[in-house]
Amino acid sequence: MKTSRLEAFSDGVLAIIITIMVLELKVPHAVELSALKPLLPVLLSYVLSFIYLGIYWNNHHHLFQATEQVSGGILWANLHLLFWLSLFPFTTAWMGENGLAAMPSAVYGFVLLMAAIAYYILERAIIANEGRDSLIAQAVGRDRKGKISLVLYFAAIPLAFVSPWIAGGLYVFVALLWLMPDPRIERQLEHRNE
Amino acid sequence: MKTSRLEAFSDGVLAIIITIMVLELKVPHAVELSALKPLLPVLLSYVLSFIYLGIYWNNHHHLFQATEQVSGGILWANLHLLFWLSLFPFTTAWMGENGLAAMPSAVYGFVLLMAAIAYYILERAIIANEGRDSLIAQAVGRDRKGKISLVLYFAAIPLAFVSPWIAGGLYVFVALLWLMPDPRIERQLEHRNE
Amino acid sequence: MKTSRLEAFSDGVLAIIITIMVLELKVPHAVELSALKPLLPVLLSYVLSFIYLGIYWNNHHHLFQATEQVSGGILWANLHLLFWLSLFPFTTAWMGENGLAAMPSAVYGFVLLMAAIAYYILERAIIANEGRDSLIAQAVGRDRKGKISLVLYFAAIPLAFVSPWIAGGLYVFVALLWLMPDPRIERQLEHRNE
Amino acid sequence: MKTSRLEAFSDGVLAIIITIMVLELKVPHAVELSALKPLLPVLLSYVLSFIYLGIYWNNHHHLFQATEQVSGGILWANLHLLFWLSLFPFTTAWMGENGLAAMPSAVYGFVLLMAAIAYYILERAIIANEGRDSLIAQAVGRDRKGKISLVLYFAAIPLAFVSPWIAGGLYVFVALLWLMPDPRIERQLEHRNE
Repeated sequence: MKTSRLEAFSDGVLAIIITIMVLELKVPHAVELSALKPLLPVLLSYVLSFIYLGIYWNNHHHLFQATEQVSGGILWANLHLLFWLSLFPFTTAWMGENGLAAMPSAVYGFVLLMAAIAYYILERAIIANEGRDSLIAQAVGRDRKGKISLVLYFAAIPLAFVSPWIAGGLYVFVALLWLMPDPRIERQLEHRNE
Repeated sequence: MKTSRLEAFSDGVLAIIITIMVLELKVPHAVELSALKPLLPVLLSYVLSFIYLGIYWNNHHHLFQATEQVSGGILWANLHLLFWLSLFPFTTAWMGENGLAAMPSAVYGFVLLMAAIAYYILERAIIANEGRDSLIAQAVGRDRKGKISLVLYFAAIPLAFVSPWIAGGLYVFVALLWLMPDPRIERQLEHRNE
Repeated sequence: MKTSRLEAFSDGVLAIIITIMVLELKVPHAVELSALKPLLPVLLSYVLSFIYLGIYWNNHHHLFQATEQVSGGILWANLHLLFWLSLFPFTTAWMGENGLAAMPSAVYGFVLLMAAIAYYILERAIIANEGRDSLIAQAVGRDRKGKISLVLYFAAIPLAFVSPWIAGGLYVFVALLWLMPDPRIERQLEHRNE
Repeated sequence: MKTSRLEAFSDGVLAIIITIMVLELKVPHAVELSALKPLLPVLLSYVLSFIYLGIYWNNHHHLFQATEQVSGGILWANLHLLFWLSLFPFTTAWMGENGLAAMPSAVYGFVLLMAAIAYYILERAIIANEGRDSLIAQAVGRDRKGKISLVLYFAAIPLAFVSPWIAGGLYVFVALLWLMPDPRIERQLEHRNE
């Protein structure tokens, strides 16, 4: 199996997830600006999830750019990642509609955590398939950023019950951490092209 | 007609079906963890259907990887398959929202059965087009796994009225049976590449 | 502009339209088989529209397979066609939910008619661009089937007020007329490949 | 990163946005023609947004046809554009359902303005990456049409409170201005191919 069809399918699912979230912005019946006010937290959580899905799309692309072959295990590891990402519209809406309440914020973090674990499994499945000396293995390296994210999501879940603002702040912080494309893989690809 | 456009269209439809199902996870108004409890059966039936659609996407890909030409008959056999798969979100939600009641479980099985029959017809249409000595004919062979699935779906429909748990168990069992990519076609493809 | 991106975009829109229609099959709260009974006309109109969209996808593909270049006019003629097709989910649901009432059946026919006109305009725009001696011009020829469809849709609209069943019967008849891929273009393509 | 995957992802998101808007055309329960009357403004705003998204798809394609490389900055500039376009279904429905009230019309214009700014940023990011002597830099030139649009959107927002019809008229006028594919880039591409 070539990576192209797996990438196309993943792109399709990601494009739909990202767009479906906007359906939670329910059109108000009133025509005053104040009618948009209750939508503000929904919009903010939409922006956060939009950025997260953009990050996943970006990193997913970098990952498969350095991948040569797709095995059955990689295919299912990829579907596993898409499953957790497909829950983003639900957790985004639940958190948004309740203005950062404790439980919805914790569940939002739980799905972020599971998606990050799924991404990590996918990464390992690809490295196992390509070999430890492969381009991708060197490119990913120890994946420090990935591990820091896991720890921060894990910490955010109980902290949501102390204050949802701490959890929310951590989610924004991790997003900022990832906002740039991964220089490690890009550097490796450049080395190869030299 | 090349297989690439048919595959791209099928991928698009499958990606949308898989993602639309998640819209049935209605966002609760309460913010307690207990508010998620009634969603649990919906989530479980979503997981099951997600896996089934992943299996269909996977097998569909293997099937067309070994296909050279697309005739009008194959095109409509493929649309016929997509039609039954497009009913998955409906049957998944009906079964999920009623916590494994008899009739919704039976109807879920009926749509699984019709999709399996549609897949079988598609397989036969491709083999008829490619010839009995073709790569795909040898790869599919007697398709024992496909036939076992048909029998189990067929059995599950009346058994849902004895106990929906038996039917549900059979659906899970068939999914596990298919979870791995089909070794027959992969083996054939490897032979060819030798 | 290459035809490939236009085809990919059209495929995407068609895949979404075809799948969005299924959202009108509202999940019933009851668990008896009788709960599905009011959904039957919705399901039937869904099947009809599914077949129509399959036909459009099929013919659209044949059309662009014989097209070499995309001009600005062709691009907008294509978007115009997609616009009318995007109204299918609305008219399908309105007709289905009211069990073949006169006005919804007439409006369903009106959108079918406008889509057929849009397809005709697209065909002419391509022929104007490719030249009267081009492959596509010869393949389409006088397009008798297209003209017959236009007349039948046109007739069905007022006839819906005599009896919605006549209109419905005409829609089914035209669908059957088109169900097979267009032999004219296929024949032309074969000639070229000889 | 090649432009092809970025284009495919953008096409997917645009195709979904364009189709999701139609879900706001809520199916009426009555079967008289008069039941469609309250839907007329929704339909008209749908047509306008459909044309705008068609224009964006068209211009986006022309832009990337003349682009050689995708940097991280371009990727996020593109996601930023998609974000504002993803709000079209919301503003379209709000404006449509309230028959051109002042505030919804102004908010519709605000999102148009932000999308236009996002497009401008994307254009500049590409030019910065490709160099000031690149094909794209010469093709875009001073982008007079883009600047006129920005001014008109900016003017329309306060004018919506004088009369929503002035704002609506300006939105239609800008759409007509863009309806044709950009001759500048096409001319440049032709020059190159000579």
